[in-house]
Amino acid sequence: MGATFDFVFMDPRLHTFTAADAGFWRIREVRGVTGQTLPGAGYLDVSAGMGPAGGQVWQLRGIRSNERYTTREEKAQLLQKQEGLGRAASTFAALIPIRKTEAWWQLSQDERREIFEGQSRHTTIGLRYLPAIARRLYHCRDLGDAEPFDFLTWFEYRPEDEPAFDDLVAELRASLEWTFVEREVDVRLER
Amino acid sequence: MGATFDFVFMDPRLHTFTAADAGFWRIREVRGVTGQTLPGAGYLDVSAGMGPAGGQVWQLRGIRSNERYTTREEKAQLLQKQEGLGRAASTFAALIPIRKTEAWWQLSQDERREIFEGQSRHTTIGLRYLPAIARRLYHCRDLGDAEPFDFLTWFEYRPEDEPAFDDLVAELRASLEWTFVEREVDVRLER
Repeated sequence: MGATFDFVFMDPRLHTFTAADAGFWRIREVRGVTGQTLPGAGYLDVSAGMGPAGGQVWQLRGIRSNERYTTREEKAQLLQKQEGLGRAASTFAALIPIRKTEAWWQLSQDERREIFEGQSRHTTIGLRYLPAIARRLYHCRDLGDAEPFDFLTWFEYRPEDEPAFDDLVAELRASLEWTFVEREVDVRLER
Repeated sequence: MGATFDFVFMDPRLHTFTAADAGFWRIREVRGVTGQTLPGAGYLDVSAGMGPAGGQVWQLRGIRSNERYTTREEKAQLLQKQEGLGRAASTFAALIPIRKTEAWWQLSQDERREIFEGQSRHTTIGLRYLPAIARRLYHCRDLGDAEPFDFLTWFEYRPEDEPAFDDLVAELRASLEWTFVEREVDVRLER
């Protein structure tokens, strides 16, 4: 099990988003989009692993995982166009936690894929905003029984690209896929 | 959040398999199929939630989740043919924890689906053994960074169906999909 531990130590898939009175990212706005919002707070930190144990206003966890809907061709397009997180000019960020309905989770894989891409063009829309809007998805639904959200999506971009980011989320929120979203919060940040 | 708590209380998706000196299921055999095996133990209990906190020889957790590869048509066939767990005559059971390679998890969704069903006929093989072999899948990979397995599959059947169960697992182990299995343990039980 030594090799497994080393891998985990070097590249933890689990990350924790902690809203508190201090942190690396200043929270500009916490806006409830659908369902119950999150409390306002001053700052947000992103940390590998389980995060700090106390002092937070709220704390959300998610784990990086395999892609669920992306084809090889789409993955190649994404890899070709996207840039990594942490770019010097990307001083704005957004954290968008989402919970989908039980009806969504009861769909079969082909039905979810058809809504996700066939109807809603989720990957195609995201591709159009690359590389300006960098994105990383964390899964929370299967961390346990008590998770308040199914996904956390983290975005980084330059301040002048915020209008484009607003267009991106508006396009997705107008899609068929979003009729299955029962809770969504939009947290905007800057560093 | 009250509704969420009620739902979780009534139907927890997380289950814990605890091997110990006493329990509902007697362990007949613990056999390492690929990679490191698990220690032998006398009995196994299956409990909802996190399970007992001490006294175990080993403990594995998994969570029921949405299907990842099943189409609507396949799901309809499964629902029509399968029977539930807990049938009075099904006094034999098996717990098969599996871990897949990093190469598997780096594949795109369409590549994994093609190997899972197009090449390996995973669902088709399972269907042929219904309703005799009842099956429930638990996911562990995304519970956290330190899980020793990716999946736990639980099977229940009558003692006279054990030769059929041996055929079922032999068919799967001979498939292309199983070339991506790097750890597998086969635990046989009776009550």
